Amino acid sequence: MAKDQLTPSRPDAFAALPRFSQDPAELELVRTDRSGFVPPTLPDGVVQAESVQDVVETLRVANRHRLPVVPRGAGTGLAAGASARAGEIVLDVHQMNRVLHIDPVEQTAVVEPGVLNAELNAAAAEHGLFYAPDPASTAICSIGGNIATNAGGMRCAKYGVTRESVLGLKVVLADGQVLVTGAGTIKAVTGYDLNALFIGSEGTLGVVVEATLRLRPVPVATATAAAYFDDVESAAAAAAAVVAARATPSVLELVDGPTLGAIDAATGTRHRSRGEAFLLIQTDGFGAAIERDVVLGAIEPFTRAVQLPADEAATAALLQARRDAIPSLERLGRTSIGDVGVPRKRLAEMVAGIQRISQETGVRIFTIAHAADGNLHPIIVADPDEPITTGAPKEALGRMFELARTLGGTLTGEHGIGLLKQDWVEAELGGLSRELQHRIKQALDPLGILNPGKAI
Amino acid sequence: MAKDQLTPSRPDAFAALPRFSQDPAELELVRTDRSGFVPPTLPDGVVQAESVQDVVETLRVANRHRLPVVPRGAGTGLAAGASARAGEIVLDVHQMNRVLHIDPVEQTAVVEPGVLNAELNAAAAEHGLFYAPDPASTAICSIGGNIATNAGGMRCAKYGVTRESVLGLKVVLADGQVLVTGAGTIKAVTGYDLNALFIGSEGTLGVVVEATLRLRPVPVATATAAAYFDDVESAAAAAAAVVAARATPSVLELVDGPTLGAIDAATGTRHRSRGEAFLLIQTDGFGAAIERDVVLGAIEPFTRAVQLPADEAATAALLQARRDAIPSLERLGRTSIGDVGVPRKRLAEMVAGIQRISQETGVRIFTIAHAADGNLHPIIVADPDEPITTGAPKEALGRMFELARTLGGTLTGEHGIGLLKQDWVEAELGGLSRELQHRIKQALDPLGILNPGKAI
Repeated sequence: MAKDQLTPSRPDAFAALPRFSQDPAELELVRTDRSGFVPPTLPDGVVQAESVQDVVETLRVANRHRLPVVPRGAGTGLAAGASARAGEIVLDVHQMNRVLHIDPVEQTAVVEPGVLNAELNAAAAEHGLFYAPDPASTAICSIGGNIATNAGGMRCAKYGVTRESVLGLKVVLADGQVLVTGAGTIKAVTGYDLNALFIGSEGTLGVVVEATLRLRPVPVATATAAAYFDDVESAAAAAAAVVAARATPSVLELVDGPTLGAIDAATGTRHRSRGEAFLLIQTDGFGAAIERDVVLGAIEPFTRAVQLPADEAATAALLQARRDAIPSLERLGRTSIGDVGVPRKRLAEMVAGIQRISQETGVRIFTIAHAADGNLHPIIVADPDEPITTGAPKEALGRMFELARTLGGTLTGEHGIGLLKQDWVEAELGGLSRELQHRIKQALDPLGILNPGKAI
Repeated sequence: MAKDQLTPSRPDAFAALPRFSQDPAELELVRTDRSGFVPPTLPDGVVQAESVQDVVETLRVANRHRLPVVPRGAGTGLAAGASARAGEIVLDVHQMNRVLHIDPVEQTAVVEPGVLNAELNAAAAEHGLFYAPDPASTAICSIGGNIATNAGGMRCAKYGVTRESVLGLKVVLADGQVLVTGAGTIKAVTGYDLNALFIGSEGTLGVVVEATLRLRPVPVATATAAAYFDDVESAAAAAAAVVAARATPSVLELVDGPTLGAIDAATGTRHRSRGEAFLLIQTDGFGAAIERDVVLGAIEPFTRAVQLPADEAATAALLQARRDAIPSLERLGRTSIGDVGVPRKRLAEMVAGIQRISQETGVRIFTIAHAADGNLHPIIVADPDEPITTGAPKEALGRMFELARTLGGTLTGEHGIGLLKQDWVEAELGGLSRELQHRIKQALDPLGILNPGKAI
């Protein structure tokens, strides 16, 4: 431990803690997330918490000495919500990664925050159950991070976001006190909805150390289709037609032509030869096949070709193609993954607007979208040595936020604000909302030690 | 206006407001809700708000003079959340009752708080849509009250509670400022979840004056069944078997024998001749008929008889029987409607425990339940001249709350705390949670003028 790296104001504060390190190699690993944002300095130290008690002790020390703490899960965030710099200590909970309990009858799971989304789903699958929120990063993102950002994924339009799957939380507050929220029941309205307050608060109100989650039965049947289009506007219009046809697909994912090309290049598939845009459609439940046919009927006027997978392997390959989108783009350069949301009927306008912004700013932007809930991920790709969060990319980002707002939407559907989107929050929320949020922050973390500068 | 009824501290504060009244006959109408609780005194006055501006002006006056205000919708609450007494002014918004906009493409509605739940559903139905939360009181309860209590109903296990259907709110804060929360999109995570904070806060944090709600497509198909059982424990066990069979019925309502008898007596039906307990089952969606058969297979070992309605009229009659439960019991005496929730697999234990508590306290308790989410409504019926919120009824209520907690449950699944359940909140939430809730209240309503003594 290189204690001399600490500033004079906090020389010995954390040194007594177990699992505290100032090894620069370790600090490098917890410096930022997958947003493309790199803080100018390293954090002062990191605590690798292995238990609730570790979290409690860390926050007690931090609270006593007014030291800022950056909670961290798997570090897969896309908004610099877990980025840390000099003057800050990282509280890393990724090693608290046990599935504590699965109740197959009640269809609930109790997990520690470091459990990966895919690990929970694997454990649930043994009981014929699944955990609905499924970010594209399911294999590498943690439940704690999912809760911190109110993460979504591909199945939200049908099954809701993280908030709808969290029944209760155990949270360590800024002063080290341990709070239990929620109840062990599907419905509970005793007092204010503290669950929802912590969900999506990006570690600024407390550190989640345990979660009781709702699982759901694996659908008895699933039906999948891939549709290809001449252009992305047609695909967006088709997605709107699905909603208008009163279908509720569990998956309705849009991928534009350039992204298809990147997936093909990275994985050897040939999607782009079939069209300049792609919709991945999945229905599930007792009427899955019937509902798929309704969806296909709705999109028929817009499509160039439709492909029905012949077997489970072909179905898995289609889902994997969508999951390969971001890794494939990351091979092309530095990426910054946008997360705007618009009313579903404005999807085609937003898609067209993104193309226009790309042309006008000279910034390469690839678009994928959770089409059934109007949540788009425009992905900026820059050269490896170009800045991704300043200059032209930032200009493009800002214009996309503005367009989303103009269309009645939001600057973030599921990734959060972090540090990256601070400049645009006021325009979306307005001054009064921000003021209230700061009052709530003040009520829960009066010294302001939890993840300062993030979220609100 | 009888100004002399005001206490000296607030003689003229509200007199200048339009639509302010101190007519005792009007005050009598806004004195309490349907909980059975009658405040010892009348409130000092009532404002019949007709616009956002009326609400703003009322709260500005109240804030300036530190006068407590009790927001009120349709007055159908079951926890004395809208009860008001001397020293308090009622702010009644039931006349703000316009459906401002329905967007059939985006599947959203914008409404004023006084719109009745059933009115919204009728307006949505014209576009092939419905609003999912459906309290039994749908015909008489208002959206504002639904939001204040995070109301549920029969369809929650499949479609979620009010919180899952609210996209955005317009709220007048304690000081008269107008806050807009949420976004016009299905997903949005910019800042803290203020929507969820106001939903279920029972008018203690602000007064909702407009709501943007999510509608859903009316299911393409619905399948209904009624199952009769030898006893209520068998019906509860059957309900647990439905969950275990991985079905997701849209309706799974349990009614016990004595309640069936009351319904029969009030409406001329003959349900109780078929069994001592009843499950109303409805599945919906593209596979509705298939799913109903799965449900019937799961409950077959427990049933005495199953009835499939022959046509729409017969289906409507079964649904109406369940809706008739509470009005039928209200004919027997004064009612106090409980609202405990337990983990779904504990339903049979809770039902048996309620029967035991009834026997031991000598209090008549009838039980209906939203079985798919473990939410029971044990209904205490007392003689018209007996107290319903003190004495033996209160003893029985307290013991039911305690039992629910022992089983891992909650004292309220969807009705809220109001005044009625204040004595038991601490035991469920614990001191730290309550303290946090009071800090949040303090942050939003520093003078404590909004619905004092309720909810938290």
